[in-house]
Amino acid sequence: MDQLKPSPANSSPLTPLGFLERAATVYGDCPSVVYNTTTYTWSSRALILEAISFFPPHIKPPLLILITDDQVSPSSDTVRFHDTYESMVEKGDPKFEWVRPENEWDPMILNYTSGTTSAPKGVVHTHRGTFFTILDGLLDWSVPKQPVYLWTLAMFHVNGWGFSWGMAAVGGTNICLRKFDAPIIYRLIEKHNVTHMCGAPVVLNMLTNYSNNLKPLKSPVHVLTAGSPPPATILLKAEILGFVVTHGYGLTETGGIVVSCAWKKQWNKFPATEKARLKARQGVRTIGMTKVDVVNKETGMSVKRDGLSIGEIVLRGPCLMLGYLKDPVGTSKCLTKNGWFFTGDMGVMHPDGYMEIKDRSKDVIISGGENLSSVEVESVLYTHPAVNEAAVVARPDEYWGETPCAFLSLKELTQKPSEKEIIEFCRAKLPHYMVPKTVVFKDELPKTSTGKIRKFELRQIAKAMGAPTISRI
Amino acid sequence: MDQLKPSPANSSPLTPLGFLERAATVYGDCPSVVYNTTTYTWSSRALILEAISFFPPHIKPPLLILITDDQVSPSSDTVRFHDTYESMVEKGDPKFEWVRPENEWDPMILNYTSGTTSAPKGVVHTHRGTFFTILDGLLDWSVPKQPVYLWTLAMFHVNGWGFSWGMAAVGGTNICLRKFDAPIIYRLIEKHNVTHMCGAPVVLNMLTNYSNNLKPLKSPVHVLTAGSPPPATILLKAEILGFVVTHGYGLTETGGIVVSCAWKKQWNKFPATEKARLKARQGVRTIGMTKVDVVNKETGMSVKRDGLSIGEIVLRGPCLMLGYLKDPVGTSKCLTKNGWFFTGDMGVMHPDGYMEIKDRSKDVIISGGENLSSVEVESVLYTHPAVNEAAVVARPDEYWGETPCAFLSLKELTQKPSEKEIIEFCRAKLPHYMVPKTVVFKDELPKTSTGKIRKFELRQIAKAMGAPTISRI
Repeated sequence: MDQLKPSPANSSPLTPLGFLERAATVYGDCPSVVYNTTTYTWSSRALILEAISFFPPHIKPPLLILITDDQVSPSSDTVRFHDTYESMVEKGDPKFEWVRPENEWDPMILNYTSGTTSAPKGVVHTHRGTFFTILDGLLDWSVPKQPVYLWTLAMFHVNGWGFSWGMAAVGGTNICLRKFDAPIIYRLIEKHNVTHMCGAPVVLNMLTNYSNNLKPLKSPVHVLTAGSPPPATILLKAEILGFVVTHGYGLTETGGIVVSCAWKKQWNKFPATEKARLKARQGVRTIGMTKVDVVNKETGMSVKRDGLSIGEIVLRGPCLMLGYLKDPVGTSKCLTKNGWFFTGDMGVMHPDGYMEIKDRSKDVIISGGENLSSVEVESVLYTHPAVNEAAVVARPDEYWGETPCAFLSLKELTQKPSEKEIIEFCRAKLPHYMVPKTVVFKDELPKTSTGKIRKFELRQIAKAMGAPTISRI
Repeated sequence: MDQLKPSPANSSPLTPLGFLERAATVYGDCPSVVYNTTTYTWSSRALILEAISFFPPHIKPPLLILITDDQVSPSSDTVRFHDTYESMVEKGDPKFEWVRPENEWDPMILNYTSGTTSAPKGVVHTHRGTFFTILDGLLDWSVPKQPVYLWTLAMFHVNGWGFSWGMAAVGGTNICLRKFDAPIIYRLIEKHNVTHMCGAPVVLNMLTNYSNNLKPLKSPVHVLTAGSPPPATILLKAEILGFVVTHGYGLTETGGIVVSCAWKKQWNKFPATEKARLKARQGVRTIGMTKVDVVNKETGMSVKRDGLSIGEIVLRGPCLMLGYLKDPVGTSKCLTKNGWFFTGDMGVMHPDGYMEIKDRSKDVIISGGENLSSVEVESVLYTHPAVNEAAVVARPDEYWGETPCAFLSLKELTQKPSEKEIIEFCRAKLPHYMVPKTVVFKDELPKTSTGKIRKFELRQIAKAMGAPTISRI
């Protein structure tokens, strides 16, 4: 078969650009973007990229374009806009021929990590990688054609996990919102018959704790959650309301979800707490990925599949980034020669082959020589009826090296718990070394623009407290 | 960004082999294959490939393996089997490490076309192409996880349109059957709660015409149909019973469905006949394909999007074969330098961008200089209440060059129509030149092993009839 070589027909470079072109044909008469009273269709939408491709070369970024003129936008008195979106579209060439990449490995997307653990890095994704991430993400979440997708996930967060392109692929309707809180989300779900949405567990937390008198949803809403492990109590409440929660895992470096807790029919018969325990695990590689494993960073060997041995989560597959922009050292540190991407996340492998994250490597607390997962302590804190949000970080300790320090925001209640009560609550549920030695109450925990708790900031506060004079054992 | 190059972690060769490995982990405790009273799980299943990989090099094909020992199998007295399936699996190495291809362009699959129009050809698909066809096929048909798939489609037919691998990817249950007729299919659907099945329109025809007292299905069964355009009357009946029909198009050379009639919510409000007319079209390229067009073969230009101008259907995208085995001339004829695969199928492009096949280029009848689609004549014949199956081919004619000759099998009725009645029925519905000049009744029409009507054979019969002495205008 030596004579058979790829030909132009079967080796055209893979790129998601074709999704928009296809959507303009197939779904040209269907709603693509809905915001308040404004509705675009997939044929108007196709013009966005044209406009962007036509940026005059002499104009240097930053270039501000007025997308909507609703009351929340800054007025043109305070900000100078180059043009409005509508005007840019108007000026576009309706006969514009789509420009596809010459090579599928060409860079396509540059995303900056939010930098919870270090300085932001520029993550470069190729056309090929993005194409895969989108197909894989849609398939893994079983997204049907023409879903109604509510943008509770920031579009700039890991490319909106690929769904900004994914919705073009399946002809979905994008329901947009400028800011969100529980009443807005519930109103939009009802008004537009939302079928799908994404969001970190904080979004689920907000939706389930908004009121004690929540009515179940009229029809199921599929929620893909990731970013941190959803506490079992939140999962439970969400599913009772009618949210069908899928739990996944991804990073800016993977472009979207690449590990997900593939659910099995036979698990439905388990008690609710057991179901929540199973679903709180990140799971198995998505269909399109090549491999996921948990390895000992020193030896490179897989850890035992016992659900206890902690190692670093490593990945292999077509969704991975090409590398970091202008950072060859950073790139070669995580994209290793032996074919793994080292995520910097620490986890365990369960006997059934499902992976579970225990912590970011930077968030692990080392107390008395024991590696301690801050996330595990947090998940216990979340089961306390008064706790709204919880984050546990290391506080320096002369005797133990580090001890767990809990930062909590509380629900609006008349009876607030004391620091001592929280510690005793944890003692009943955790081994001694994992119980927080310090509890700090805050009105709100600091978060990144994508809703992640800024542990870095909390760690600074805990560090500033210094070591307690007498270590409370 | 010049310094960024693919690394082993993000450029691991694409291959569907990983689907089986993944299924063994994720769905190891779930049923994979069910045949009569035999059930395998996805972890026993993972051993199949191992056994095949371990073929001793000194044994030359053909190598017969006894898969089941039920009463239908030939007894070991008449056929010499090398081994049984169970014994092969038993001898396999449970610690076998999966061998992945070194290059994703390596050949993986060799399929022979059934040869309705010419001699069978060996179609070579790569690991990369097969990987894509499977992901694309699942996504385009919106197949959820853990479907129950009834094998009404022959597995050897275009790799079972990719679903033999596809079911591993989504952890489906494969319900197998040795031979099929309507009562067996209805029994298996009911017994196993079948959710998905594939089949040419002849299968739908058989299911809908089996009895006049058919009860609607308990829950919907998704049917992917392709191979020839399903007549509107069959589509109508099938949907009333509860079959949710998706219509697609593919060839052995595409490995599966690459064009499908993407359905839009707003079409549901149309009358049933209009819905059937829309669905009888093959449609638009699947999400993963790069391009589909209908072109004038001489000029290479796209035909008008008017639903009337006939041209050849051409394709571009990652699902296409690498080429034909040991046939460089045949390969370069259809995989052209300008980046198209020429399908040999003739079709039109509708104003909304949906493609519709009119005929195989070999099946087009040229009567009085007019190109005439045999399929269009057949679709009228199918609306006659007595017609079970219809095929129209060219009969030589001294005056017209060729005239349409209809071969029909009839339903079991007391009142059979005459040749004249059939011709008059067509006159009321077709332009004069398209009306069959000859009608031949047969108990059954000849078919290939994959259920396609062997028009080649019927053409031979029509040719042997010779030209009529007086051409009946």
